[in-house]
Amino acid sequence: MITVAILGATGYTALEAIKILLRHPQAKVVAVTSRQEGRPPIASVHPSLVGRLDLPLEDLTPEEVGTRADCVFGCLPHCASAEILPRVLAAGARVVDFSADYRLDDADTYREWYGHEHPDPGRLGATVYGLPELFRRQLADATLVANPGCYATSAILPLAPLLRSGLCELDDIIVDSKSGVSGAGRQPKLTTHFPECNESMSAYNVGRHRHTPEIEQVIARHAQVRPHLIFTPQLAPMDRGILSTIYVKPKRPIGEADVMQVLREAYAGERFVRVVDHLPGTKDTVDSNFCDITARVVRGRVLLISCLDNLVKGAAGAAVQNLNVMFGLPETAGLL
Amino acid sequence: MITVAILGATGYTALEAIKILLRHPQAKVVAVTSRQEGRPPIASVHPSLVGRLDLPLEDLTPEEVGTRADCVFGCLPHCASAEILPRVLAAGARVVDFSADYRLDDADTYREWYGHEHPDPGRLGATVYGLPELFRRQLADATLVANPGCYATSAILPLAPLLRSGLCELDDIIVDSKSGVSGAGRQPKLTTHFPECNESMSAYNVGRHRHTPEIEQVIARHAQVRPHLIFTPQLAPMDRGILSTIYVKPKRPIGEADVMQVLREAYAGERFVRVVDHLPGTKDTVDSNFCDITARVVRGRVLLISCLDNLVKGAAGAAVQNLNVMFGLPETAGLL
Amino acid sequence: MITVAILGATGYTALEAIKILLRHPQAKVVAVTSRQEGRPPIASVHPSLVGRLDLPLEDLTPEEVGTRADCVFGCLPHCASAEILPRVLAAGARVVDFSADYRLDDADTYREWYGHEHPDPGRLGATVYGLPELFRRQLADATLVANPGCYATSAILPLAPLLRSGLCELDDIIVDSKSGVSGAGRQPKLTTHFPECNESMSAYNVGRHRHTPEIEQVIARHAQVRPHLIFTPQLAPMDRGILSTIYVKPKRPIGEADVMQVLREAYAGERFVRVVDHLPGTKDTVDSNFCDITARVVRGRVLLISCLDNLVKGAAGAAVQNLNVMFGLPETAGLL
Amino acid sequence: MITVAILGATGYTALEAIKILLRHPQAKVVAVTSRQEGRPPIASVHPSLVGRLDLPLEDLTPEEVGTRADCVFGCLPHCASAEILPRVLAAGARVVDFSADYRLDDADTYREWYGHEHPDPGRLGATVYGLPELFRRQLADATLVANPGCYATSAILPLAPLLRSGLCELDDIIVDSKSGVSGAGRQPKLTTHFPECNESMSAYNVGRHRHTPEIEQVIARHAQVRPHLIFTPQLAPMDRGILSTIYVKPKRPIGEADVMQVLREAYAGERFVRVVDHLPGTKDTVDSNFCDITARVVRGRVLLISCLDNLVKGAAGAAVQNLNVMFGLPETAGLL
Repeated sequence: MITVAILGATGYTALEAIKILLRHPQAKVVAVTSRQEGRPPIASVHPSLVGRLDLPLEDLTPEEVGTRADCVFGCLPHCASAEILPRVLAAGARVVDFSADYRLDDADTYREWYGHEHPDPGRLGATVYGLPELFRRQLADATLVANPGCYATSAILPLAPLLRSGLCELDDIIVDSKSGVSGAGRQPKLTTHFPECNESMSAYNVGRHRHTPEIEQVIARHAQVRPHLIFTPQLAPMDRGILSTIYVKPKRPIGEADVMQVLREAYAGERFVRVVDHLPGTKDTVDSNFCDITARVVRGRVLLISCLDNLVKGAAGAAVQNLNVMFGLPETAGLL
Repeated sequence: MITVAILGATGYTALEAIKILLRHPQAKVVAVTSRQEGRPPIASVHPSLVGRLDLPLEDLTPEEVGTRADCVFGCLPHCASAEILPRVLAAGARVVDFSADYRLDDADTYREWYGHEHPDPGRLGATVYGLPELFRRQLADATLVANPGCYATSAILPLAPLLRSGLCELDDIIVDSKSGVSGAGRQPKLTTHFPECNESMSAYNVGRHRHTPEIEQVIARHAQVRPHLIFTPQLAPMDRGILSTIYVKPKRPIGEADVMQVLREAYAGERFVRVVDHLPGTKDTVDSNFCDITARVVRGRVLLISCLDNLVKGAAGAAVQNLNVMFGLPETAGLL
Repeated sequence: MITVAILGATGYTALEAIKILLRHPQAKVVAVTSRQEGRPPIASVHPSLVGRLDLPLEDLTPEEVGTRADCVFGCLPHCASAEILPRVLAAGARVVDFSADYRLDDADTYREWYGHEHPDPGRLGATVYGLPELFRRQLADATLVANPGCYATSAILPLAPLLRSGLCELDDIIVDSKSGVSGAGRQPKLTTHFPECNESMSAYNVGRHRHTPEIEQVIARHAQVRPHLIFTPQLAPMDRGILSTIYVKPKRPIGEADVMQVLREAYAGERFVRVVDHLPGTKDTVDSNFCDITARVVRGRVLLISCLDNLVKGAAGAAVQNLNVMFGLPETAGLL
Repeated sequence: MITVAILGATGYTALEAIKILLRHPQAKVVAVTSRQEGRPPIASVHPSLVGRLDLPLEDLTPEEVGTRADCVFGCLPHCASAEILPRVLAAGARVVDFSADYRLDDADTYREWYGHEHPDPGRLGATVYGLPELFRRQLADATLVANPGCYATSAILPLAPLLRSGLCELDDIIVDSKSGVSGAGRQPKLTTHFPECNESMSAYNVGRHRHTPEIEQVIARHAQVRPHLIFTPQLAPMDRGILSTIYVKPKRPIGEADVMQVLREAYAGERFVRVVDHLPGTKDTVDSNFCDITARVVRGRVLLISCLDNLVKGAAGAAVQNLNVMFGLPETAGLL
């Protein structure tokens, strides 16, 4: 039984990870942390866990966390994450970091997009990006895994095979994404206050969302081609789900069947990527670790459409999938 | 043209009042206040007002507010309201207070339910309750009007005629209400954070919601009978609307037609109370100043069902209706 | 491995049952039926099942269904169900009937509330009601189980212990319930058309919802006391979840702690009923087989508040729980 | 007082038109039609109209409709519309057609996109397109006006000035739109059944939505340049609102301020187009006749973002605005 500790367990991705691990036959949550005093039960913060997980929220040191569990899920904010995780790793645990801190290749890009110095720059570029569909081999031995951003996964999975194929331009790519509100986290803010965002759609962080360089660098790392893309995140009035509509320019005229073929071949053996003929809705993937992808060719341009649950395949489900690969468990354990 | 100032203009009820007054042929918003510095345009806080209301948010003294306008809509939190409004009144303006401060009959009840001393107890019990359907005559001369609570209106309108009729028991009344989230105000909180309250229903403040004594005292004042009720507020995943399902025990067996007759007679000449045969939904009344009411008799008990928009008939629409009566304008002006 | 066939697999409760059984270690879906021609894959109707359940929708006879599987989940409309299930039983399968056909005690009550003759009256009153918390012992040997109505479970679980205790009146009970829209099924209708029911709350079938006699008879069967209740179903703008607020009159003054004690004792060993101190929201139970219950005493009356997911504990989860008891599997298998 | 008849008054756009006209000081609904027998009151179909519009739904001939009112709002399905409206026109009324029948330039395009012969091809190309911001002058004398499609307005308003300016390419335009569900009409369908589309986002009619040629032809007519675009409609879980995110390629590098300047100049005197600096949300425009537009330049490409209410500026509000221009009334009458 692999033991798991959750560092920063009061948010939505942590809750989702706990729920998945409660169904996992070979992994088990043994500690959950938070800065709150008095060791309140985790269920006092997440009432859905009453009677399901009987652990206190503990204010543990990184060293304590690192010795308590085989694997630590880091659910801390970026920057805080890279300050603490090195100490967790030093204590002997393997780590899946849900934050963005280890996703990028270099400290300069990090500084440019995240606005401060990286606390642990030495691991940048050397950390495995936790998308098993692209980096499964490297995961097996990884001690630290950068769990992907939710938007990033929704863009990388459809884009990577197509760009790797050489059939499309690299510098004329538009990723238009729509996300449920849970992606914004659990901290109350005016923009995510129910009467503000309910019954409304709006774009935010246009041209400056931090998943932009993540998508570009990861595709470059995987496919040896470096795309350049425009990414537009948009908030949709729903709890979960990301729909990404991606516009790519083929180098030469290409048929829908050809694009579908590229996708199908890329994901032929993959359990959690479903290349489908119909136009998927985010609800098809909600509460599951699946990413559904399809393609259309419209007036000469390739459209890739992907759906996933931002809290599962976009966060906690991916983390468990990574854990499974890291520890030699069946990749689907706990996830079907 | 009646001039109106809005005191505390950044919340939802203030915004709704502004929108209604923008369509009002004989009233006009001339000042909007907030503690924010720098006189930002109101539209910077309420983007739906861009190009519709070109006023700055000003940090005015109560005296300034009271001299700027014929009528002041007080949209301040309770307690703060009763500290400031006496000065506004002293400056010569007539006031509609959206807060709860002047709704109750006495300082003791206020202290019991609101948890602190009333800042202006002398006006308690002497202030007109702004429900024109019950207190129209008193409104005409009022300088200060207590605008009703949203739940209170949804309960009082169906209950008052029936209790006044003497047909029903006064101490066996259950008001089970469901409200949209805008009723909780614009301040972000965890309970009104989208991923928390979306797709969920829950009860809150069971047995201790402050509209309980308001409903009881107002019915007593109007109908000379003092009911005693159980009130259960519940949060529904929608922006606006209150559905109140009210259970009353008749003294003697009574038919549905009789109850409907009582309601129809009570509201025969009323423009904004619609006694309907069908079961109304809150959406029938959203964005309108209507309150829809129907009745059923089930196994000997009377069910009253009412619907209204908490921001309109439950707040800003009622305020404008009050203003119309206070200033001798057509009661429906701006409201149809 | 227990084999399960789903009779009428195109609706929401069938889909939910399939998803639960996909995670069940000792049960397996082996056939899914529908009247559609051409044996389309089940995933063509439920796209969330792509790559998860590779079965065709077959138009099987009751006899074929009854020989294909150890257990048949009947997801047919009422009346149709009792016409077909006797043939399924005759073919040797054990059956969990999701319809209302076998829930009532007698053919007269069925005729009164469902409006036609019962096709198989002999089994009425003799069929086990599938609420393991009340009828676990009878389930072990049952060949036919009447799976409870979703509203009924949300009312019976909190009411049964309290009424059995003799502390409360039997004829002054109000059940005010709010349900998500999936409870209305998958057949498109105007009342469940998105722009009609979204952002709205409304009551329906007031005084004549068919779960009324079900609740009364089941409590009578279990607790040897026959309550008489008013039940008000209401539609809330959400996918799933039922919140029931229940008002009961104690015979003598009673404290909150006493009521909670009755509930805690009744469900002390139960895995899926959580007696909680806080006011639960439906979201605490969504996608789970839990029913959360709490109690308050307000002005001398007992309030019971219960939450559950109408598709899980209110339908498919209960069915799997029943299957587990019927076949001697761990009661929580597939459900945690 | 201009009299208006609504032809086909049971849908959402008709209801919205009625609500707007109820507030219009110089126009009045005098007849509403439907094929239903028995002249039921309009409020029996639209309960929000109880006590507000006391008209029966009448099954009138086109000639009767055309003589009853100065202006007829045609809210019929496409094809049916062009079969009936010529007779309405012949009877002497002026017409605003909400259907798509008179929006296109020619019968060939109509046949290609709508799948059948146009019943009245002679008026194609000669009918004024009812977007006052572009075609105000022609509207004054029009007897027949083609009211724009909701998506079309959300795309044409931001695109037209920019394409007319000559600053951008005409053949590299992507319109990625997200619409509330009311845009799909009032006929219940599985795709708009609440539990299907709630909490989900999905694309539909990719590459073949009929507003594509409408947008292209109208821009060509207005700006003398013919764009070629990719249009992706997507369904968002909300009642109303369209967010269109539009990607345009400038011929030469261009700054954000330049694009904003083009938009501001184009709409300087327009009351219902708001060029705003912030990123608008659809909620800013809901229940109003405004279209909010902003622009960003991201990695060399121009992003235009527009928001409107599909039932108001996208349908009924536009129709009233057209009526105002046609009949020489103040253009904002009833609309602010």
